[in-house]
Amino acid sequence: MDKPLKYAVFGAGSWATAIVKMLCENLNEVGWYMRSVYTKEHLLKEQHNPNYLSSVEFHLEQLKISNDINEMAADADVLFFVIPSAFIHSELEKLNIDISNKIIVSAVKGIIPESGLLVGEHFHEFYKIPYDNIAVIAGPCHAEEVALERLSYLTISCSDAKKAKFIANKLSSDYIKTKISDDIIGVEYAVMLKNIYAIAAGIAHGLGYGDNFQSVLMSNSIREMKRFIKKMHKMKRNINNSAYLGDLLVTGYSVFSRNRMFGNMIGKGYTVKSAQMEMNMVAEGYYATKSAHLLNQKNAKKTQLPIINAVYQVLYEGKNPKKVFKKLTDKLD
Amino acid sequence: MDKPLKYAVFGAGSWATAIVKMLCENLNEVGWYMRSVYTKEHLLKEQHNPNYLSSVEFHLEQLKISNDINEMAADADVLFFVIPSAFIHSELEKLNIDISNKIIVSAVKGIIPESGLLVGEHFHEFYKIPYDNIAVIAGPCHAEEVALERLSYLTISCSDAKKAKFIANKLSSDYIKTKISDDIIGVEYAVMLKNIYAIAAGIAHGLGYGDNFQSVLMSNSIREMKRFIKKMHKMKRNINNSAYLGDLLVTGYSVFSRNRMFGNMIGKGYTVKSAQMEMNMVAEGYYATKSAHLLNQKNAKKTQLPIINAVYQVLYEGKNPKKVFKKLTDKLD
Repeated sequence: MDKPLKYAVFGAGSWATAIVKMLCENLNEVGWYMRSVYTKEHLLKEQHNPNYLSSVEFHLEQLKISNDINEMAADADVLFFVIPSAFIHSELEKLNIDISNKIIVSAVKGIIPESGLLVGEHFHEFYKIPYDNIAVIAGPCHAEEVALERLSYLTISCSDAKKAKFIANKLSSDYIKTKISDDIIGVEYAVMLKNIYAIAAGIAHGLGYGDNFQSVLMSNSIREMKRFIKKMHKMKRNINNSAYLGDLLVTGYSVFSRNRMFGNMIGKGYTVKSAQMEMNMVAEGYYATKSAHLLNQKNAKKTQLPIINAVYQVLYEGKNPKKVFKKLTDKLD
Repeated sequence: MDKPLKYAVFGAGSWATAIVKMLCENLNEVGWYMRSVYTKEHLLKEQHNPNYLSSVEFHLEQLKISNDINEMAADADVLFFVIPSAFIHSELEKLNIDISNKIIVSAVKGIIPESGLLVGEHFHEFYKIPYDNIAVIAGPCHAEEVALERLSYLTISCSDAKKAKFIANKLSSDYIKTKISDDIIGVEYAVMLKNIYAIAAGIAHGLGYGDNFQSVLMSNSIREMKRFIKKMHKMKRNINNSAYLGDLLVTGYSVFSRNRMFGNMIGKGYTVKSAQMEMNMVAEGYYATKSAHLLNQKNAKKTQLPIINAVYQVLYEGKNPKKVFKKLTDKLD
């Protein structure tokens, strides 16, 4: 790589904003695509994102902000996609240029509902990106703590270790430590599954289960996650590494996690619809639950997934959370 | 076992009180030894422990309360010891009867400082109890949630599966689910080590580290715990089972954990002495840190224990927590 690569972030949520902040620690120029004209105008005027991590002040001379996804994609070499899985398909449909020679870094959490594919698979399949040019960023990392510059660890997965390393370098700083991994598929599944377990933790809390049960639920969740990922992509991995267990814990224990909050409302008696309306958003884990369920159904030899099944029954089959979780408690140990 | 066995609990702290409550769900008579005459008198008059879980009301006709450890030990067949590891040696010294034919159930957390042995080993060595007659109770379980009858899971470990099972049965109820295990040594070490990691979590919190770091710390802790236990007693075990990972999480994430609170004060700048005075008690993990450090020193091939070493340096070598933890962050991933 001779001439310096250009980096751009696609998305303007809290995680996208945090990634722009991390890149700005190392780069003179960061491209930033966002759909909203209002957000762009506000950023240019006030130097911060009006909706997320608004305490983070950017230096405008470092940013190249655009509402035009094609212009931004054409200009950059390394494209960070940080858009909720439910919206990425419609965003990508706006692309009318060839991006097959770009490096794609996904910080999307979950499966793309329209294709039923992991984000990496989706880019490979529909945009002809070689797997060696696809990387994934995993936590454990609340964007809010990046804003506060509290020490956080990221794992960058890519089948090409060199590329993983240089992307990791661009994200590293005083408050961000990075490691690399070649288990891109396992990490993508982990990122998706943890949100389902966070919903389960929320439902349990909403139903009145306590800390003792929560720890049993997390202990069973990581074992279930291990079984699921092993079935999907068998390789040597330590499921207790930060990208899997750490990410599960930061999400499952956080009272700020939107997935846990969504589950909590369900446990307290809200319907799925009313919880979504009340939160004014859809928790990623809602879609992930369906995807994980379908993936497991497709397998001839199904994996035992008592926690995912319980969440599926509550969210998609209208079953009573109290009864479903009572049954679930007998399957945990 | 033809005639019904008699059960007695030794200790009057919160965990002892919770275990008496659990046994009372299943037995007509439970012996209860406590050192304090005041606590006994209060219990007999007010039907609750004055100092711990005072919301739990006992039926006096079920209890046989005594301040005489020899009378209680002579009368019972199954002896539950629930006394902090720092005090159990001096309590046991009062025994002047032979207890070699009793079944011992330990709910003591940690190593006995005077002998440097696990509780099971200590009873075997000094009281001639065969290993088949020694069992250990592990969480994840806050006593306070047992008082509230919130669903909790216990693991009963004994090399004799039959005995593990009947002890488990005596503790099971609507709100207590039990499982059995034959990894008594591993579970004893896990119970001890988790308190060190809870101190580490407290120190980190006191120093201003956030949730992202906490999850990385717990992910590294369970891997370190696995290495430590494997070195001490190699056998097939799933470190992510509730008795290991679950117990670590309930302690490491709880703001009520005394070990975490102790660490938090150290992180905020208290000296070890002043933190202990302020808390009016000694956190189990304080002794466990020294024991774990010594055990590892004794090994010819030492295990990498960066977290335990960091806590040891802070608690026993007077090192600056901020500097020690800054160095620790480079060793975690």
